[in-house]
Amino acid sequence: MNLSKRITSMQASPIRKLVPYAQEAISKGIKVYHLNIGQPDIKTPETFFKAVKNFKKDVLEYSFSQGMPELIDAISKYYKNYNMDFKQDEILITNGGSEALLFSMIAIADPYDEILAPEPFYTNYNGFATAVNVNIKPITTKAEKGFHLPSKNEIENVITPKTKAILLSNPGNPTGVVYSKEEIEMIASIAKEYNLFIIADEVYREFVYDGLEYTSFGNIKEVEDRVIIVDSVSKRYSACGARIGSIASKNKEFIAQVLKLCQGRLCVPTLEQIGAIELYKTPESYFKEVNLEYKKRRDILYNALNNMNGVLCKKPKGAFYVVAKLPVENAEDFVIWMLKDFNLNGETIMMAPAEGFYSTKGLGKDEVRLAYILNEKDLSKSMEILKAGLEKYPKKLTKTTI
Amino acid sequence: MNLSKRITSMQASPIRKLVPYAQEAISKGIKVYHLNIGQPDIKTPETFFKAVKNFKKDVLEYSFSQGMPELIDAISKYYKNYNMDFKQDEILITNGGSEALLFSMIAIADPYDEILAPEPFYTNYNGFATAVNVNIKPITTKAEKGFHLPSKNEIENVITPKTKAILLSNPGNPTGVVYSKEEIEMIASIAKEYNLFIIADEVYREFVYDGLEYTSFGNIKEVEDRVIIVDSVSKRYSACGARIGSIASKNKEFIAQVLKLCQGRLCVPTLEQIGAIELYKTPESYFKEVNLEYKKRRDILYNALNNMNGVLCKKPKGAFYVVAKLPVENAEDFVIWMLKDFNLNGETIMMAPAEGFYSTKGLGKDEVRLAYILNEKDLSKSMEILKAGLEKYPKKLTKTTI
Repeated sequence: MNLSKRITSMQASPIRKLVPYAQEAISKGIKVYHLNIGQPDIKTPETFFKAVKNFKKDVLEYSFSQGMPELIDAISKYYKNYNMDFKQDEILITNGGSEALLFSMIAIADPYDEILAPEPFYTNYNGFATAVNVNIKPITTKAEKGFHLPSKNEIENVITPKTKAILLSNPGNPTGVVYSKEEIEMIASIAKEYNLFIIADEVYREFVYDGLEYTSFGNIKEVEDRVIIVDSVSKRYSACGARIGSIASKNKEFIAQVLKLCQGRLCVPTLEQIGAIELYKTPESYFKEVNLEYKKRRDILYNALNNMNGVLCKKPKGAFYVVAKLPVENAEDFVIWMLKDFNLNGETIMMAPAEGFYSTKGLGKDEVRLAYILNEKDLSKSMEILKAGLEKYPKKLTKTTI
Repeated sequence: MNLSKRITSMQASPIRKLVPYAQEAISKGIKVYHLNIGQPDIKTPETFFKAVKNFKKDVLEYSFSQGMPELIDAISKYYKNYNMDFKQDEILITNGGSEALLFSMIAIADPYDEILAPEPFYTNYNGFATAVNVNIKPITTKAEKGFHLPSKNEIENVITPKTKAILLSNPGNPTGVVYSKEEIEMIASIAKEYNLFIIADEVYREFVYDGLEYTSFGNIKEVEDRVIIVDSVSKRYSACGARIGSIASKNKEFIAQVLKLCQGRLCVPTLEQIGAIELYKTPESYFKEVNLEYKKRRDILYNALNNMNGVLCKKPKGAFYVVAKLPVENAEDFVIWMLKDFNLNGETIMMAPAEGFYSTKGLGKDEVRLAYILNEKDLSKSMEILKAGLEKYPKKLTKTTI
């Protein structure tokens, strides 16, 4: 009575596995600042709760498998603001971006097929892929280059006859990279040349700083039949607990096939969809305000990191994460040490070791991911704690590894 | 740029595929009674909505990947009423029973492994299995025997070295069968002998009529390490749109491995879990009332069907479905004809052809599934319509095929 190989070989969440150390610290009375998770503290627009609370029916019925027409309509309108034209029958509502990713993988790849993804990548890409027997092949990117893509040639070298798609998050989790228009066009041309799908995880679309131009794969006409946009309300409207995501694609056969999976799980929760309809009507000004807030936080984090000896971190341009190289041999050991053996006036921080975001063995060992989802004061304090921790860490490398 | 074989070979929902014919009938002004879907008309307990509307936080945050502790606790207590003892760390909350099934399959079977299931079965078993490359092997059951299980020997004949589990719904969808204690014990002994998991889909646990004894797989001590109970609030509390399901198992390794899948999709919606906590506190009297209502409906349906010439239908003992053999060669043609070409005083009915619930080719061609989820008046009228339709159907078999 063995469990399956696919489940036993699945990686446990590197973001969550150190939680027991944090719990231990808290139980000793130490305050822990959580920079390890992407749970924003920004208020969810009130319109969400109002709509949910206004639900009047007696029976909480199944909704449509493809999603509520009003929500699909709201998302279609939202995309129009970004010059993307997705019709009603080109959008499916999913249980978070997570299900959108899982369903896309199932629909595109058979067992032992391959999907390329720039590493470090969102760790659950690997989890979902392993669960459904798809191999993620990494395109390695580097801290020194701000995690931008390597040359076309280097990417082509990873492609095999089993490659079915390229999967990218842009803005990037965990790196905060925002790909340039040239990078997007390069990926598009590779996809066309090698006949691949593009799975574009754009859940952080609005989180781009410094007035940088953002190019969605939905804006590249020549590949519109091969682009699948994965989206979610989680970060955009600080509604992670709603679990409302979506798939948008102009490839009608892809949508028709994924609809079978949607029908299999019947529907996405009714009330959360009703709330999400209102989220998509949130005025532009909300994003501007939120964006400004995150930019401030990004600056605090970035400036502080660059003032620490031996830390390498290029300025992240999007999302709310950064991957920083630390002057330590093993970042996981350091993260644990910060929780177990260190505190500054009764306070410490929790970070995510970055190794789990890489698929190539040995990479990312000296890196951590930090999420800047705390208010300015707490973030500043967290950076003081990190600085003090690095200074006191007994296994600190005296010469940086960079 | 082909889509995967697993998605293209996946069966489309036989319950939903005739929807366009119903829509056409409705557009012609014909009233359609829906006996084709399992959406009950019973009121969802108000406590669900109250709890949701009472949510006070500003940020709709992620919940725990394994589910909210209060909900897990409520489910653990619920099982105690049925003499099942599942601890907090033996229960996981899922996106409906659907996700519980999908995750169980992934955790138990690798590609091309097999899971046995009595047919006719809930059609999405096949859908999920195809999506993750698991082969469902049918144990054929028959209308003439009220869809009870065949002999131990017949079941053993379907087992191969690739068989990993037996999957059953009890009470049964689509058949309404309730397995006897002897049948449950036979399955348990086979599972033990051949070292198989038992995936027990018991979402209709409370829907058992005529004072029949109900035996859960959770009550069979000798197989407690190999039993996985799939559950859901959808039918139990008429809360299909909440999409709250669960997995319960005393096999801790199984739970630990499935938790990785739960972490991959982060969490189940927060608000719906808050509502579900209250559902599980619904007093016994609710079930008694609901049960009585369904029993009345079952009787109306069963008596009416038995008064129709050439219709075969053993009295269903549970859930709210029945599979009936009709005196027609092709039930799907008849279902379509009822929608396209027939009405009784401007009214007709929609049924689900049963062929899609069988995996053995050719079986169920002359059968339909009827859900008795309408009130007594509408149900009686629906039966009049069916009777009149059968009488008028030009391709009716003069001698029954039974």
